Amino acid sequence: MQKLAMIKEGKAKRFYETDEVGVNWVEYLDQATALNGKRKDRIIGKGSLNNQIDTILFEDLMANGIKTHFVKQVSQNEQLVKTMTMIPLEVVIRNAASGSFQRKFKVEYLKAFKKPVVETFYKSDALDDPFINESQILALEIVTETELAFIIDYALKVNQVLTARYAAAGLKLVDFKVEFGKTMDGEIVLADEISPDSCRLVDEKTLESLDKDVFRKETGDLVDVYTEVLKRLIDSQEATNV
Amino acid sequence: MQKLAMIKEGKAKRFYETDEVGVNWVEYLDQATALNGKRKDRIIGKGSLNNQIDTILFEDLMANGIKTHFVKQVSQNEQLVKTMTMIPLEVVIRNAASGSFQRKFKVEYLKAFKKPVVETFYKSDALDDPFINESQILALEIVTETELAFIIDYALKVNQVLTARYAAAGLKLVDFKVEFGKTMDGEIVLADEISPDSCRLVDEKTLESLDKDVFRKETGDLVDVYTEVLKRLIDSQEATNV
Ligand SMILES: Nc1ncnc2c1ncn2[C@@H]1O[C@H](COP(=O)(O)OP(=O)(O)O)[C@@H](O)[C@H]1O
Ligand SMILES: Nc1ncnc2c1ncn2[C@@H]1O[C@H](COP(=O)(O)OP(=O)(O)O)[C@@H](O)[C@H]1O
Ligand SMILES: [Mg+2]
Ligand SMILES: [Mg+2]
Repeated sequence: MQKLAMIKEGKAKRFYETDEVGVNWVEYLDQATALNGKRKDRIIGKGSLNNQIDTILFEDLMANGIKTHFVKQVSQNEQLVKTMTMIPLEVVIRNAASGSFQRKFKVEYLKAFKKPVVETFYKSDALDDPFINESQILALEIVTETELAFIIDYALKVNQVLTARYAAAGLKLVDFKVEFGKTMDGEIVLADEISPDSCRLVDEKTLESLDKDVFRKETGDLVDVYTEVLKRLIDSQEATNV
Repeated sequence: MQKLAMIKEGKAKRFYETDEVGVNWVEYLDQATALNGKRKDRIIGKGSLNNQIDTILFEDLMANGIKTHFVKQVSQNEQLVKTMTMIPLEVVIRNAASGSFQRKFKVEYLKAFKKPVVETFYKSDALDDPFINESQILALEIVTETELAFIIDYALKVNQVLTARYAAAGLKLVDFKVEFGKTMDGEIVLADEISPDSCRLVDEKTLESLDKDVFRKETGDLVDVYTEVLKRLIDSQEATNV
């Protein structure tokens, strides 16, 4: 497999063509952004940590029957994925109150929900990624009603698998964001990434944050924290595989 | 029936106790507010116009099988309603793009939706009436899942009746806001008001605005416009009743 011309670059990853049609080469970047890209720092080691965490989690999701864009890891900070036509929605699943939910509704930090909360955001730079409800998604014809139901159901399944996987690593999954895409034959699968950049994790005992919040709030060292998450995932993997 | 002590005063109405338990005396105020109450003008005649329009529309809704808090009109600007335990949600139904929807999603003014759009807002002064989705409503336990489905379904039925009633008056109902309450025996019924304060109406031919937008945008005289709406509703009522 050969890495060819760059296709696009986002805040966290670069996408390249390969010599195989339908397969992209993804490079995880050593950079972190906050405030929707307004703040941007170079952080050596972050790309590699995210790529490795993402690989473990995508492999675990696939072992649990969830279809994803993931093909395989090719280096410390690179992986191969299937080329997707991305669906411009961010689906957020919340198991407990934090971040924008907590600010908006003034509820207690980490108050647990009886059922996971589902939120959708319309990925549009021109509109500034607005919060959007299901009825609005259908009115704007972003996806069909069947596709929307499928995506939400899938995101909730991802939540079940990830919650269990992180619990095995002594971590509580507070919330996370996922994106979906369509394969060349129109099937909707999980795409983009799953890493401490796009979720909130707290130590199940101390409730200490082990995710990008340490960077957003400048309360800790991102590399130390992501290294700890990777270590715990690897250790618990070995424990699980005994 | 006697009008007794005042219970509460909102931006558009005052509520009084009466000598009958479970019945409130409502006075429609001669005032208009914009920007969530930051702008407030005294407008002689508005209370009476809204009370009369509201009466026609609630009677029409009830004739079409929709349960409401409305009891009867008692003067030009006063009516009796059943005392409700209000549900702190505003349900907005949109038949075409206008207002916040149009601004948020940058779509063409009055672009018609294939299916009505449903939006919910959490009526909370402390939180500044935020836009809220169904999943968040359930997480905050504002209503139960069954109640929420009922309310949304009811709001869509109200839309059907109002759309037809306004069409008979040569007006297109672009969008509107409703509120629901619970009666003393726990039944959910339509409450609050229906008036050009809480909806967008355009002339079906000229597309000229005939609602509170003339006040918000300072493009016309509110009393002239509401008088025209009332006149058209009365004229089309007589036509219907021939
Ligand atoms: N398998 C895929 N095929 C094509 N695009 C993808 C795939 N997975 C993720 N993307 C998209 O790649 C872009 C770059 O990723 P990222 O750097 O995370 O961007 P962003 O700045 O939007 O967070 C994003 O728009 C993301 O939706
Ligand atoms: N039947 C009812 N019983 C009790 N309260 C009601 C009833 N109908 C409406 N209300 C409430 O009365 C209050 C005053 O009305 P209004 O002046 O429109 O207030 P607002 O400033 O919230 O728009 C509102 O909180 C409204 O929800
Ligand atoms: Mg991203
Ligand atoms: Mg009101």
